[in-house]
Amino acid sequence: MSKVGIIMGSTSDMPVMQEAIDMLKGFDIEVEVDIVSAHRTPDKLFDYGKNAHTRGINVIIAGAGGAAHLPGMIASLSPLPVIGVPVKSSNSIDGWDSVLSILQMPGGVPVATVALNGAKNAGILAAQIIGSSDKCVLDKVVAYKEGLKMKVEEGAKQIKNSKPKK
Amino acid sequence: MSKVGIIMGSTSDMPVMQEAIDMLKGFDIEVEVDIVSAHRTPDKLFDYGKNAHTRGINVIIAGAGGAAHLPGMIASLSPLPVIGVPVKSSNSIDGWDSVLSILQMPGGVPVATVALNGAKNAGILAAQIIGSSDKCVLDKVVAYKEGLKMKVEEGAKQIKNSKPKK
Amino acid sequence: MSKVGIIMGSTSDMPVMQEAIDMLKGFDIEVEVDIVSAHRTPDKLFDYGKNAHTRGINVIIAGAGGAAHLPGMIASLSPLPVIGVPVKSSNSIDGWDSVLSILQMPGGVPVATVALNGAKNAGILAAQIIGSSDKCVLDKVVAYKEGLKMKVEEGAKQIKNSKPKK
Amino acid sequence: MSKVGIIMGSTSDMPVMQEAIDMLKGFDIEVEVDIVSAHRTPDKLFDYGKNAHTRGINVIIAGAGGAAHLPGMIASLSPLPVIGVPVKSSNSIDGWDSVLSILQMPGGVPVATVALNGAKNAGILAAQIIGSSDKCVLDKVVAYKEGLKMKVEEGAKQIKNSKPKK
Amino acid sequence: MSKVGIIMGSTSDMPVMQEAIDMLKGFDIEVEVDIVSAHRTPDKLFDYGKNAHTRGINVIIAGAGGAAHLPGMIASLSPLPVIGVPVKSSNSIDGWDSVLSILQMPGGVPVATVALNGAKNAGILAAQIIGSSDKCVLDKVVAYKEGLKMKVEEGAKQIKNSKPKK
Amino acid sequence: MSKVGIIMGSTSDMPVMQEAIDMLKGFDIEVEVDIVSAHRTPDKLFDYGKNAHTRGINVIIAGAGGAAHLPGMIASLSPLPVIGVPVKSSNSIDGWDSVLSILQMPGGVPVATVALNGAKNAGILAAQIIGSSDKCVLDKVVAYKEGLKMKVEEGAKQIKNSKPKK
Amino acid sequence: MSKVGIIMGSTSDMPVMQEAIDMLKGFDIEVEVDIVSAHRTPDKLFDYGKNAHTRGINVIIAGAGGAAHLPGMIASLSPLPVIGVPVKSSNSIDGWDSVLSILQMPGGVPVATVALNGAKNAGILAAQIIGSSDKCVLDKVVAYKEGLKMKVEEGAKQIKNSKPKK
Amino acid sequence: MSKVGIIMGSTSDMPVMQEAIDMLKGFDIEVEVDIVSAHRTPDKLFDYGKNAHTRGINVIIAGAGGAAHLPGMIASLSPLPVIGVPVKSSNSIDGWDSVLSILQMPGGVPVATVALNGAKNAGILAAQIIGSSDKCVLDKVVAYKEGLKMKVEEGAKQIKNSKPKK
Repeated sequence: MSKVGIIMGSTSDMPVMQEAIDMLKGFDIEVEVDIVSAHRTPDKLFDYGKNAHTRGINVIIAGAGGAAHLPGMIASLSPLPVIGVPVKSSNSIDGWDSVLSILQMPGGVPVATVALNGAKNAGILAAQIIGSSDKCVLDKVVAYKEGLKMKVEEGAKQIKNSKPKK
Repeated sequence: MSKVGIIMGSTSDMPVMQEAIDMLKGFDIEVEVDIVSAHRTPDKLFDYGKNAHTRGINVIIAGAGGAAHLPGMIASLSPLPVIGVPVKSSNSIDGWDSVLSILQMPGGVPVATVALNGAKNAGILAAQIIGSSDKCVLDKVVAYKEGLKMKVEEGAKQIKNSKPKK
Repeated sequence: MSKVGIIMGSTSDMPVMQEAIDMLKGFDIEVEVDIVSAHRTPDKLFDYGKNAHTRGINVIIAGAGGAAHLPGMIASLSPLPVIGVPVKSSNSIDGWDSVLSILQMPGGVPVATVALNGAKNAGILAAQIIGSSDKCVLDKVVAYKEGLKMKVEEGAKQIKNSKPKK
Repeated sequence: MSKVGIIMGSTSDMPVMQEAIDMLKGFDIEVEVDIVSAHRTPDKLFDYGKNAHTRGINVIIAGAGGAAHLPGMIASLSPLPVIGVPVKSSNSIDGWDSVLSILQMPGGVPVATVALNGAKNAGILAAQIIGSSDKCVLDKVVAYKEGLKMKVEEGAKQIKNSKPKK
Repeated sequence: MSKVGIIMGSTSDMPVMQEAIDMLKGFDIEVEVDIVSAHRTPDKLFDYGKNAHTRGINVIIAGAGGAAHLPGMIASLSPLPVIGVPVKSSNSIDGWDSVLSILQMPGGVPVATVALNGAKNAGILAAQIIGSSDKCVLDKVVAYKEGLKMKVEEGAKQIKNSKPKK
Repeated sequence: MSKVGIIMGSTSDMPVMQEAIDMLKGFDIEVEVDIVSAHRTPDKLFDYGKNAHTRGINVIIAGAGGAAHLPGMIASLSPLPVIGVPVKSSNSIDGWDSVLSILQMPGGVPVATVALNGAKNAGILAAQIIGSSDKCVLDKVVAYKEGLKMKVEEGAKQIKNSKPKK
Repeated sequence: MSKVGIIMGSTSDMPVMQEAIDMLKGFDIEVEVDIVSAHRTPDKLFDYGKNAHTRGINVIIAGAGGAAHLPGMIASLSPLPVIGVPVKSSNSIDGWDSVLSILQMPGGVPVATVALNGAKNAGILAAQIIGSSDKCVLDKVVAYKEGLKMKVEEGAKQIKNSKPKK
Repeated sequence: MSKVGIIMGSTSDMPVMQEAIDMLKGFDIEVEVDIVSAHRTPDKLFDYGKNAHTRGINVIIAGAGGAAHLPGMIASLSPLPVIGVPVKSSNSIDGWDSVLSILQMPGGVPVATVALNGAKNAGILAAQIIGSSDKCVLDKVVAYKEGLKMKVEEGAKQIKNSKPKK
């Protein structure tokens, strides 16, 4: 059974990162959540990055904002796929620093970056990664996408049935 | 045995995308390469996106530049993990359009975005995704990272041994 | 008689897109409104794009935000002129992603892009496109522009008559 | 028979704008080319903008760079649809000024903006505008799009047939 | 006696532009205020630009936002020095469009651009321009600058005298 | 008789700033050129700024690049109108630092900013400032603008007479 | 005993800069606070910059916003290390002007720039500079960093102990 | 006697970083140069950061490009002042990623950031940091700044003596 490690640089990132947790729980995928700060707890960062794959973690989701080094440093230390969530934190310049310091990793050390504050998509991507070798999870992803379609179709119906404004 | 589908919007993206192919071949992972243009061959796009997972593809790498819709549209159509490579094509505004139109996907449809022109990292990420459930590939990733370290250490030795400039 | 198809990626785009509807109704041009999501209802996207011109639609207005692929994908599928409205949605990075992923289309597949949240101008542009071959609509555009002038002149009069602040 | 007026701020814009001319000639649509500078020939600008629609012009394409006021000022003066081409001129800051000063028109006065240096797409868009009421031109647009598909498919074939690099 | 013409594209620019009026009144320089929209009242724009210098205006201040063409078009039509105030209007992308479409004028037609929403500085600059040939106004500018110094020194005194926070 | 002081932060700015000198000489306006570095010769900066208006200078043009403090510091020290030329120097980030550190002056201390590398326009603007109180110079500006029109008209003639490309 | 001079361009910068004061007081380092405006009190700027090192100041922290010249001009005048704090003031364009006009100093005159509104880090950096030659202060920095780790670990504990949301 | 540790992420950063070495040697300050990659040699990074201050290093200069984590991670691990040099490497988006991922450090962990490619200034800043407690080095900085002034004055002389161009 697969497990996703979700880490973030600060408890203040939790409101954004909760969406990844919720999404993975919806797919019945086990998650383990922790606070790991690249800049304030470097020893924990090292320990986490070096051992995650030996502890049964299959995919890591890491969220951080500003000069966001957590996803990239975990990717430096772990052979697992690392999904980076750029968080638009209070000290960020409109999110550009968060995005660029996660996305622009040098050749050799990728981070799978999702949209600014895109923790929900990080959860789905983790499920897709597991689903790429687990038919049961893949089927859940297919069903989830079917659900997205349904909601849009409902919205479309409402628009069509609504009385025109005068 | 896992297989990675690599697609790009135009043959002009090939010099960038070749690095993904080379990297995956280095990991002995099977690749299938094709040109699929979201804007010029939409039928092929649909066919590719809907059927890739039923044809034995496990991970998709999609590269495109400018208003780059290929990775996101494939992610819309396929339940597989899709890695997006923003290409700094000749018509791009310094690469910002390529990056933002791949990265900023709406909730529900993630694209695992790598750095601008980061096809090499896309190849490594695909290997890591496969490695998350395949011990043999994971070991190759571990070995690859060890190799990165070696090269840096050689560079460091050169610097230390070099005669100082006057 | 001409008809304009107005589509958007989500019901949350409706407050912005309503201005296009209102503007076209003011020109007595028929509109047909629908929700079509490039990422969540790709089949509907294909159907819409391929058949709009055979169903009596003359111009398409498509609004979307973030990695906004709807206008470009419709332009890929339809021979009709497609007007793109970049929407500053909640997940957008200050609107830059919306603008660039609609504007920067590759050679061969244009989208007539208007300003960020510029749905009102999308409506006027659709009227101008129809007016380019329909004298009656052209005259309405001329009259509309005359009305714009009037409002500015009223504002100018108020400024001149206002008591100076001390 | 429809006619497209193509204007640009300077002869130095000609290399970019030539693509619009070539594209329209390929569709057998009549074009009329002129240099009109918003900043250096304001009287000609006024005369052009006010009279284009009475002289048999149906669509206007205007290209300019830097603080590019030509497309917007023509749109202010003419009831016709105006397509704006942001030109990455030598005095431009990476094209951002050209794009923003054409795209971000105020409510009431739209400019149909295409990509930076996207004169080719401006030509196609003009054809699509004419084609929205002219079945014969619409068919040519359909055929053109079919041609785009062909070229991609040829590229795809080459990729597949090429010997792998060692 | 010198006179400054202050124009703006819309009454909604008045709260910003009022600072220029107040500043000039503080220098006892005559001002004439009007609404002139480049895009909605092009005839008024032409009339204003061509005749300002023959009507006794010495300096023009023009404020506008978004694709802000008013300052540049006035500079195209008038031989007088034109000061441009980029206004951060509601339809602007964080003010970048306002700034770039006023600042980046082509060779031959300068606009003296001040900071975003910098109408106060536009007023001072107009006074400095008049003061460059009018000793009496120059002395007022010198006195104004002395006043700026005083205010800073008062602030410095407060800081030094304030009780430290615990 | 009026005189314009032209200063720049480094001799490397001379190729850009020469255009201001040439333009003013074309208007028969006296110029005085010097190198004044805000960061390397602060005493000279102070001396220059404090005394320019007492030495017979009427307008100052200051060019600098990167964190460009010269124009703003001169404006701090002198009551004269200061025209700032943002230079795209080798250490600049695409010119954005040069533009923003000259343009965005605080309330109280304006710099009349022209386009990136826009020294030619700085020269014209200085002439216009002098012309605002000197009929003879104003007439030269009017004649100069007439000349701009001529050149565009010649370009237009060439375009119209040129043989179409096949 | 070391002393840090903290200056800022305006009393409105005080809420941001207070964090530097508090941080240094926490390290028992003497601070001296003043308002020095590069643009409004240039004489005070000169006096401060030229004499700080002779008055017993060891490190200078300077905060300013918009076209922020204070840190760079102090660095021009003083041989001491100058830490620049870009302040996101009300007249700033999202902080970009503040950052670039402090960071992008020319070769020869460095400013040690910290993050936008990063006065807290300016205080820590000043302590680290003093600590680089003062073992006692260095130990306090080590202890401070230990404290950062503690807080993260408490946050991590809370996350782990919290009841999962349903 | 003080010592400066200079590290960089890759030998390809050497041409930029050499300027810091040269500058410090000019001040007769001992330097120790090494290659330390945050992403490829994380163990060396940890060892370096944790022990630099116990090995006699007083100041650290760290240069890196793209998603540049080296300066920030060293600042996380060491109590010493860390000077960060954003390098405009080949994989960087015009240097913005390098700048933002070094500058925008979270509260608690400062990096003294210098201009893009500003290694020369990093060297001077390191000397100033040492000079803040070492009168002899401070005097050398004063002399260096005097030298800067001389060079500008020579340039100014050349300009004044040069024959005017016709």
